Amino acid sequence: MSASSTAAVAVPSFEGDFSPGEAFSLEAGGVLLAPILHYAIYGEPNAAADNVIFVAHALSGSARVADWWPRLFFPGGLLHAEDHCVIGINILGSCYGSTGPATIDPLTGNRYGPNFPLVSIRDIVTLQARLLERLNIHRLKLVLGASIGGMQALQMAIQFPERVERVIAIGAAPLGAMGLGMNHLQRRMIQLDPAWKGGNYLPSQQPREGLALARALAVCTYKSAALFEHRFARKPDRSGEDPWASSHELGQGLNGQRFDVAGYLDYQGERFVERFDANAYLTITRTMDTFDPTRGYASPESAFRRIQAEVMLVGISSDWLFPPAEVAALGVRLVKAGIACEYRELVSSHGHDAFLAEPEELERLIRPFLDRS
Amino acid sequence: MSASSTAAVAVPSFEGDFSPGEAFSLEAGGVLLAPILHYAIYGEPNAAADNVIFVAHALSGSARVADWWPRLFFPGGLLHAEDHCVIGINILGSCYGSTGPATIDPLTGNRYGPNFPLVSIRDIVTLQARLLERLNIHRLKLVLGASIGGMQALQMAIQFPERVERVIAIGAAPLGAMGLGMNHLQRRMIQLDPAWKGGNYLPSQQPREGLALARALAVCTYKSAALFEHRFARKPDRSGEDPWASSHELGQGLNGQRFDVAGYLDYQGERFVERFDANAYLTITRTMDTFDPTRGYASPESAFRRIQAEVMLVGISSDWLFPPAEVAALGVRLVKAGIACEYRELVSSHGHDAFLAEPEELERLIRPFLDRS
Repeated sequence: MSASSTAAVAVPSFEGDFSPGEAFSLEAGGVLLAPILHYAIYGEPNAAADNVIFVAHALSGSARVADWWPRLFFPGGLLHAEDHCVIGINILGSCYGSTGPATIDPLTGNRYGPNFPLVSIRDIVTLQARLLERLNIHRLKLVLGASIGGMQALQMAIQFPERVERVIAIGAAPLGAMGLGMNHLQRRMIQLDPAWKGGNYLPSQQPREGLALARALAVCTYKSAALFEHRFARKPDRSGEDPWASSHELGQGLNGQRFDVAGYLDYQGERFVERFDANAYLTITRTMDTFDPTRGYASPESAFRRIQAEVMLVGISSDWLFPPAEVAALGVRLVKAGIACEYRELVSSHGHDAFLAEPEELERLIRPFLDRS
Repeated sequence: MSASSTAAVAVPSFEGDFSPGEAFSLEAGGVLLAPILHYAIYGEPNAAADNVIFVAHALSGSARVADWWPRLFFPGGLLHAEDHCVIGINILGSCYGSTGPATIDPLTGNRYGPNFPLVSIRDIVTLQARLLERLNIHRLKLVLGASIGGMQALQMAIQFPERVERVIAIGAAPLGAMGLGMNHLQRRMIQLDPAWKGGNYLPSQQPREGLALARALAVCTYKSAALFEHRFARKPDRSGEDPWASSHELGQGLNGQRFDVAGYLDYQGERFVERFDANAYLTITRTMDTFDPTRGYASPESAFRRIQAEVMLVGISSDWLFPPAEVAALGVRLVKAGIACEYRELVSSHGHDAFLAEPEELERLIRPFLDRS
């Protein structure tokens, strides 16, 4: 399958695992013994290895970039699939091939489960950089990501300034209080499910209901009220339920029948539990919460001043998880630190998810930055 | 204690129960046998009984208006405690004295529990009107309420037009898709708690964790991101927790320590379970979801045209549960139906809760409407 065939999902030219082969110390303390990073490469590095783009994934993504952002690879998409080499790397803590809570801890022979340590964005990026060295990729033409992907892009530009030429971070900033609250409640939902068992569940018996509920709330934070109003308004569930029916007569107790938005949220939750691990969800949301790219430096300014890349930050007008004002405020701090940073706002009712839902508009904003020589 | 003493909570001059003493048929089907309404009266009706104000409570309120809206009664507050007679009526489905899921069903001798029927705002108002008749209150000088209280005010003006002189409904409209989704997820959280037992729990063993979690999410919908950012930002929990501490080393598994906003939300949840019943929460959120004051009339316009009261609708600028645009849109529909309706916007960062949090600004908006002869 050609990467440039219309509407076909590109397949990696290579997919594999990397491990430093030794203990990896984490920023918050704790150690992972010989952790694995699963990665995927689309296309090939050229002779100078100056055509490599790292696309960093968000909470529920994977190394297989084309699976969750297929449009990047379409003809006329943001990347030139013929010229570029795209690498995707599954983050530590995830459940798509890299070491996470569901992995067997080599030290104990048991799954990490609830003992999986707190992993920071910095940890994730440190290990990614080791993988890139191993691949003889010493400089990235672009690091592109949204949400947690954008966090990785910014972190990499601070931590490895000489290796990053350009950064595009979409809907990413240290999480604000409302987002921290929403993530906290999502974790508590998973932990409320008796099937969670303190994190010691069998993979085939994970806390489905709790995880589905957490995902449903997350989906609310990824969308916007305007979008929901447009799509669902006060319509009853499309499968024929009637929220106004007497639950008493239906023998449904206090459950009742659903509005369409409720059916949609339930469906999103049910789909998610088929492809994601509850402990990985707990882990990665804490990674997201604790993102602060200036931690460990003498001052925020001294952290930002390290950046050598040209940076584009994109805020999304209807994003309430990462409000555009917070993304713009981060941009102002970068500019004040002397960094070549520009800020653009993606006007969309799609909320945080607009980076996937509004590709034409995103491309229109980003292309001038990418095409600049 | 005098109702006009500064910063003292007024006490009712009378508090009692009313029952129609017969079966009460519900709009969605189902019957409540001799349901009880608990009510409280502050001050006394005058000879003409033309000084009576009905203050309708929201989800978690009670008949004791001064307990949850004390400022109404303060000197210089919205009401003239010396002249007015204020009545509060606990809504059907609640757990503050009126018939709700925790009440014994006279037909079975058992608690209604999960068999409590769907109660509509119309049902609530119908029974309130019967109580007012019993009290020889044939006309209300004002019906005032926010949220579900505002729904009752609007419904009463439509259903009993000749009995309502003025209406002030704050942050109230049929719930939009985001609000319906949030309520649905809250109900699912309660039902996820194994202590819920399909609704058949003992009152002393209610699903505390699920209810606390539902309340915590509700609190997010009652506040605003701006308020949370101002109050909590990314501060660690005030009791000394450190979200960046390695949960691994602390032996806390994937729980981690909390940010301040998380500690606040947990605290709000824990407080709530001491004073509210989970099944009542399930019931009342469905009542809220299904509010549509035009249901049962030939057309929305024919419903609105019934109103004889002067109506003031107040939207709150930062309210994302009942966005001000939806309140304003309802106002436009009333005006188009020929009703004397005005719309004001309360500019506040406090979100839906601003009606309690911003009394001075609310009074400034409302007073001209109230004082108009």
